[in-house]
Amino acid sequence: MKTRQEHDLLGYKEVPADAYYGIQTLRAVENFDICGVKLSFYPLFIDALAMVKMASAKANNELGLLSDELTKVIVKAGEEVLAGEYYDQFPVDMIQGGAGTSTNMNANEVIANRALELMGFEKGEYEHCHPNNHINLSQSTNDAYPTAIKIALINHNTRLVEVLKNLVESFRAKGKEFAHVIKMGRTQLQDAVPMTLGQEFEAYAANLEEEIARLNQNAQLFREVNMGATAIGTGINSEPEYSEKVVRHLQQITNLDIVLAGNLIEATPDTGSYVMYSSALKRLAVKLSKICNDLRLMSAGPRCGLNEINLPKMQPGSSIMPGKVNPVIPEVVNQVAFKVIGNDLTVTFAAEAGQLQLNVMEPVLVRSILESMEMLEKAMDVLKDKCITGITANEEHCREMVLNSIGIVTALNPTLGYEASSALAKEALADNRSVYDLVLEKNLLTKEMLDELLQPERMIKPQKFVTK
Amino acid sequence: MKTRQEHDLLGYKEVPADAYYGIQTLRAVENFDICGVKLSFYPLFIDALAMVKMASAKANNELGLLSDELTKVIVKAGEEVLAGEYYDQFPVDMIQGGAGTSTNMNANEVIANRALELMGFEKGEYEHCHPNNHINLSQSTNDAYPTAIKIALINHNTRLVEVLKNLVESFRAKGKEFAHVIKMGRTQLQDAVPMTLGQEFEAYAANLEEEIARLNQNAQLFREVNMGATAIGTGINSEPEYSEKVVRHLQQITNLDIVLAGNLIEATPDTGSYVMYSSALKRLAVKLSKICNDLRLMSAGPRCGLNEINLPKMQPGSSIMPGKVNPVIPEVVNQVAFKVIGNDLTVTFAAEAGQLQLNVMEPVLVRSILESMEMLEKAMDVLKDKCITGITANEEHCREMVLNSIGIVTALNPTLGYEASSALAKEALADNRSVYDLVLEKNLLTKEMLDELLQPERMIKPQKFVTK
Amino acid sequence: MKTRQEHDLLGYKEVPADAYYGIQTLRAVENFDICGVKLSFYPLFIDALAMVKMASAKANNELGLLSDELTKVIVKAGEEVLAGEYYDQFPVDMIQGGAGTSTNMNANEVIANRALELMGFEKGEYEHCHPNNHINLSQSTNDAYPTAIKIALINHNTRLVEVLKNLVESFRAKGKEFAHVIKMGRTQLQDAVPMTLGQEFEAYAANLEEEIARLNQNAQLFREVNMGATAIGTGINSEPEYSEKVVRHLQQITNLDIVLAGNLIEATPDTGSYVMYSSALKRLAVKLSKICNDLRLMSAGPRCGLNEINLPKMQPGSSIMPGKVNPVIPEVVNQVAFKVIGNDLTVTFAAEAGQLQLNVMEPVLVRSILESMEMLEKAMDVLKDKCITGITANEEHCREMVLNSIGIVTALNPTLGYEASSALAKEALADNRSVYDLVLEKNLLTKEMLDELLQPERMIKPQKFVTK
Amino acid sequence: MKTRQEHDLLGYKEVPADAYYGIQTLRAVENFDICGVKLSFYPLFIDALAMVKMASAKANNELGLLSDELTKVIVKAGEEVLAGEYYDQFPVDMIQGGAGTSTNMNANEVIANRALELMGFEKGEYEHCHPNNHINLSQSTNDAYPTAIKIALINHNTRLVEVLKNLVESFRAKGKEFAHVIKMGRTQLQDAVPMTLGQEFEAYAANLEEEIARLNQNAQLFREVNMGATAIGTGINSEPEYSEKVVRHLQQITNLDIVLAGNLIEATPDTGSYVMYSSALKRLAVKLSKICNDLRLMSAGPRCGLNEINLPKMQPGSSIMPGKVNPVIPEVVNQVAFKVIGNDLTVTFAAEAGQLQLNVMEPVLVRSILESMEMLEKAMDVLKDKCITGITANEEHCREMVLNSIGIVTALNPTLGYEASSALAKEALADNRSVYDLVLEKNLLTKEMLDELLQPERMIKPQKFVTK
Repeated sequence: MKTRQEHDLLGYKEVPADAYYGIQTLRAVENFDICGVKLSFYPLFIDALAMVKMASAKANNELGLLSDELTKVIVKAGEEVLAGEYYDQFPVDMIQGGAGTSTNMNANEVIANRALELMGFEKGEYEHCHPNNHINLSQSTNDAYPTAIKIALINHNTRLVEVLKNLVESFRAKGKEFAHVIKMGRTQLQDAVPMTLGQEFEAYAANLEEEIARLNQNAQLFREVNMGATAIGTGINSEPEYSEKVVRHLQQITNLDIVLAGNLIEATPDTGSYVMYSSALKRLAVKLSKICNDLRLMSAGPRCGLNEINLPKMQPGSSIMPGKVNPVIPEVVNQVAFKVIGNDLTVTFAAEAGQLQLNVMEPVLVRSILESMEMLEKAMDVLKDKCITGITANEEHCREMVLNSIGIVTALNPTLGYEASSALAKEALADNRSVYDLVLEKNLLTKEMLDELLQPERMIKPQKFVTK
Repeated sequence: MKTRQEHDLLGYKEVPADAYYGIQTLRAVENFDICGVKLSFYPLFIDALAMVKMASAKANNELGLLSDELTKVIVKAGEEVLAGEYYDQFPVDMIQGGAGTSTNMNANEVIANRALELMGFEKGEYEHCHPNNHINLSQSTNDAYPTAIKIALINHNTRLVEVLKNLVESFRAKGKEFAHVIKMGRTQLQDAVPMTLGQEFEAYAANLEEEIARLNQNAQLFREVNMGATAIGTGINSEPEYSEKVVRHLQQITNLDIVLAGNLIEATPDTGSYVMYSSALKRLAVKLSKICNDLRLMSAGPRCGLNEINLPKMQPGSSIMPGKVNPVIPEVVNQVAFKVIGNDLTVTFAAEAGQLQLNVMEPVLVRSILESMEMLEKAMDVLKDKCITGITANEEHCREMVLNSIGIVTALNPTLGYEASSALAKEALADNRSVYDLVLEKNLLTKEMLDELLQPERMIKPQKFVTK
Repeated sequence: MKTRQEHDLLGYKEVPADAYYGIQTLRAVENFDICGVKLSFYPLFIDALAMVKMASAKANNELGLLSDELTKVIVKAGEEVLAGEYYDQFPVDMIQGGAGTSTNMNANEVIANRALELMGFEKGEYEHCHPNNHINLSQSTNDAYPTAIKIALINHNTRLVEVLKNLVESFRAKGKEFAHVIKMGRTQLQDAVPMTLGQEFEAYAANLEEEIARLNQNAQLFREVNMGATAIGTGINSEPEYSEKVVRHLQQITNLDIVLAGNLIEATPDTGSYVMYSSALKRLAVKLSKICNDLRLMSAGPRCGLNEINLPKMQPGSSIMPGKVNPVIPEVVNQVAFKVIGNDLTVTFAAEAGQLQLNVMEPVLVRSILESMEMLEKAMDVLKDKCITGITANEEHCREMVLNSIGIVTALNPTLGYEASSALAKEALADNRSVYDLVLEKNLLTKEMLDELLQPERMIKPQKFVTK
Repeated sequence: MKTRQEHDLLGYKEVPADAYYGIQTLRAVENFDICGVKLSFYPLFIDALAMVKMASAKANNELGLLSDELTKVIVKAGEEVLAGEYYDQFPVDMIQGGAGTSTNMNANEVIANRALELMGFEKGEYEHCHPNNHINLSQSTNDAYPTAIKIALINHNTRLVEVLKNLVESFRAKGKEFAHVIKMGRTQLQDAVPMTLGQEFEAYAANLEEEIARLNQNAQLFREVNMGATAIGTGINSEPEYSEKVVRHLQQITNLDIVLAGNLIEATPDTGSYVMYSSALKRLAVKLSKICNDLRLMSAGPRCGLNEINLPKMQPGSSIMPGKVNPVIPEVVNQVAFKVIGNDLTVTFAAEAGQLQLNVMEPVLVRSILESMEMLEKAMDVLKDKCITGITANEEHCREMVLNSIGIVTALNPTLGYEASSALAKEALADNRSVYDLVLEKNLLTKEMLDELLQPERMIKPQKFVTK
């Protein structure tokens, strides 16, 4: 393999001649073989790194710190990164020591070398365009890296919310489709009072729809960046106007409403926005898990369970039990939810481990959040496509359960009072009778009034009280 | 003991004659001896239950469902509860089965019995004022209980935020006091570049100040209540206008901006607001823990640690090591943070366990959140009073460390470039020399320029670059 | 209030004259008002502290470091503590800074003052018997405190295991009682193949029975103590033979198989045994939660759920739905399980936070474990008494579900093959037919053979294959 | 692409002609695109699946249920799998719905098709060798899948323990190397009493060495398998002697001490062994994290921290601060620890979610455990190779800190008493004096005795008390 020699503080190393990355990236690849997921796995993150470098070059140019020529080639190189041409040049493991320095240097090196080429130099001729002196100018890993993470997370959030919206719509459509299906509502797994299956699915839609606002609200926290903080937030080695300028360029390049943190010393080690956004992901996961638990419960059967709905059949369910089909899609969504909850704990630990002027655990933190987002996207897509849209209702069975229930006695409460109704319920259960028959037998209400009160459709919304 | 006899669905029991609670409360006391923390431990929660009952009585009265007389005595009884007269009548364990039914019935019974007295009847003469038919009229546990929880949590949040604000101020005051103390900033526990101790404490203030907004923003989610949902959100046994009326009364009684949830079927089993608020508590805990870790680190010593600050001495630190004093206050705050994080996990599990039309795990969820809030309040108070306000700085030692450091070479970067500066740093470390001497020795800069560049005060904020 | 004056490193304070505790306990009470649970809440823990002091006094006496008279009164004072006479003299909050120094000093002070009285002196005349010089002689908090914790946990474990054994027996008794009740087994909530309800309950017994071994095995880790480690494990201020002697006395006093840790410097900051034992508690909690979920599922109904079993009715289940009764006992056990899981996370955080030669977070760790144990004891007791022992089976309904199921087609597999059986299952489901009828109609088997193969009792254990 | 047609319960699909897997694997690939980690990523797991199939074929053959010819080719196909020839034929995502049915069917299909080839048939000619009828004979996913998982985990554990042993040895070697380096011990980050750096590293070795026993002890739980349980533990469709026979063959094939679970109905849904083993992984992670925290603390500097040790320099530490080198290896190990702790929570959730006769969440559970093991292996290897073995001590600086400390006053305790020593400590600190000078000045001890008592080497182990 053809190589070129590069050096750094620790000495010399041979770098593959055609590599855009350099010696520091190479060291990181050698040091960190941890989770096997490389930076290249997250193009939106690499894009965000490039955007930071582009914005910084423009700001430095305005300040007179970077020549027009260098600025031009750095921006051009950044644009090529955004075009997807160098993702494979980011081979560093997502989980790394060094608080992201390797990631930042990977970006610095790739852009420096591409910029060199654009100027007609060879890769590695850093005297003309240096990863630290030029690409990283006015920056530190400690501002460039978290800023790039935040931009990437905002863009990932946009994608996630899109998937979520589609899922919400699929529930909503079923809510309409099942609007006429009367079924038994249950609290504490015990028969309660009637509702429609449509109300239930619309409630799932409404429940998940709230997450759109929650995710977006918490993703807002990522808009605050600490560019200009440099090493520890004091802004050493940046000029006084740099922060303002770089943020303005970042807004233009990202097309996002990026703002500068109010206190850069506070913002630099702070991982609060990650904690909060991860919590919002966890909340979404908890809701998805609850809903999938419900779907599995309602489709339990086919003959010895609630059997209210049928999920689409995706695959034979058993290697031994012929004909068995299982709710495999909700099951896999549950499992994704458990991973997301686990990742949120990882985020919590990583956030708590910050020390003094930096939190060195950011790499595991961002890997965990991105993994959660990615799995949630896939899980919600599959849930919509291979489950929700194909659900059917066992309408007749649902209605029979309601008519046969004791819970409908509740509707007699306003008319007969709680204690008389309780006695009725007790007797119906003990003697295996229907509430309807008992009321008639005891002459508690006229058949006419009873027929009205016990009409399931009457029970699914508030009604004027009826007195005897 | 004198008793009165009461009965319910399951039979008869003797209730202490002077008890305002009744048979269902008694059963709950017998069934649940779990965590030993009673409802009476949380007056704000009992108040909220009373407010719900008062608002409901007024709404029912407007609808013509409850007589003026009953309304009057129920409201009066509620006011007495708010005045703190019956807290000891709430003996049920906070952690209970039944999704809060025992708590709701405890409130129904106490208010019914006090209302009976106010009308001149004996306790237990429920034919005149019945816990279910009158106090619980148009309600179910499934709307009254979570509504009361949410009101209580909003009020607890107000208290917590007040404590937090005071803590923020104590950090801010130290930020001002230490504005002139130059010290070494550290990233990854390695010497980085200079900053002031004042900047550090102001950053803590800013960091915690953000939590005020986060807590308040997430507490906003509690404003949404599901009154009128009754059993499962369909509003069975409530009249069409009840929801709107009860919420209006609730606004007046609580003086809070309570609103009705958009979808009552969704809102009834949903525990999303608890998940989110608990996450905000967790974030506060994570930040407090990080800050306390820093305080313990910075005060490590007195002679073999960083020794930058002195915490007030609260108690002898060792049973064996004479003269040892430990950072006991930050230590206890760390421990509270770990409890809060543990409680957040309990909340997560409880939220995920909701099934179909209800989440039966609400009692453990609310207990966990209240415990976290209570411990955070106490921890932040003690942190402020017995630690932050008494911190002093070892100014001279802090400055010496900066002057002796290698990290100050960073300030030469813009002038000498990254590689030359790296070489300087390497040599200084290897030969145990000072950066200052080396630069002079090598004639890299004039003494004048060097003196300016290496002035610590110059390094604590952005500066125009200086060229040779 | 009458007081006496005491002093310590930090100065003078007035201590209530009749208090056995002294100035350091008083400081701790003032410093730590955190969780409200005092040392006095855990008598077994106070006993263990006394045992450590007694054993230490005896060892010191053998080494000639403590006079016979002092040894005698210290041991006597310890015995009085064990007799329960001074529990109220331990007012320090369980959650405290200082790594347990306040707890250790509380014990030192109480025993010193009682010993003083026994010698005819006044409380506080420490020149005759000093909390540090005599009671704490050859010890540090860092060995005495964790040793006491471990002894207490072993004894708490014994109690917990006893409660667990009783619960196991209650499941086992039901296993026998329901041995003849045929019911449908379910996997993934879908109908699977038949089993007996007795097998199911016996499986719960077996499942929980394993926890006895797990708890005891992991409690074994607590036998290893670090007496003689003193401050950091090096044994400073203890004599060479002290460790061996104090452990021998501890064995005699505790009647436990206490052993000395192999490496005292390792043992002193190590919290591994707590992590492991807490994990065993978590495993028990997870199992209890799963079983309670099952009980709630199997008793779902009474008419629109699985309705296989009836749980004892403990209280009316609803403030609005007459006649409703809920599975309140399993529900509360679930909630306890979630607290235990949350506490395990607190333990994890606390364990990870150890630094260098000590883990200062032990107080929250021990509080969390003891809280979990206590709640598990109560939850298992109530589960046995108020739920398991009163469960009844809906035998007929269970059998009908089996006969009506499609899952029984599985029994035809060995005879007809998987594909033919799958076709049968598919047709039965599609046409709402019984498997039995279809087989006969298609002449796939003789009625005789079919009757044998589809006998539910035949399906609940391995059988010789039958060929056509 | 050439294909062959296969069918199952749900219909027909085209399978790539050269694929050894079949229609059910294909459906799973289509259904589950979740975490992107395929079965093929874990060869030891695929091996274990093959072993289960081989043992089962042999047992079926002995029972006369499988012909000699089929048995021979199935065993041969299994051996080829073990030889690594078909790993790429296992394309199913590790996280899947269906409780592992897709994984089991993947194995059934690959072995069936290879067996068909060995008999001279075409792939897909299942009438001669059927995935369900022959390869899965006497099995269900519900016994075959968890049995394979457990065998895989035992083998992974062996590998993990090997890596751990090497790490322990690297700490031990440093313990010996640093045996003579006197340094200050610290409790609660405050100066305590002297020890040697060698004692500290030997303690790390001892601390981690305990994990070998813990991991192995908890891995023992995996020896218990439920072969013969078939669908739900009742053994339907297995012959009475099958269990005993298949376990015996499994012992031979795996060379492991596999045993049959005592109660197969209990064992089938039980995930207790995973919970326990994951807890042991968590404990290892917690210990590694604590140790890495210590390493980072002790190497803090180079000039403004404790600076007791030097970690090997692995890469330049900063993009802005010249000469900075960070403890990147311990940092990445911390992050791995946080992932392991997060995964343990995922396992806890998955275990709790078991319902009735099965736990459908096993796939996420096994993925989480395997991920943790894999990352721990890599992290421990890198910790040993790139950190521990290259650590050097700053011996002189360590000794100076001890001599300059106040903590050494502790050694005067037995001679002067706790209160006099406290007064000395207080004065030394207040006046910035040395303890040594103060004692002499006050004539508290002869210089001779003082020199002996304050000899650091004397303080690192128990000593006979010295009296004045």
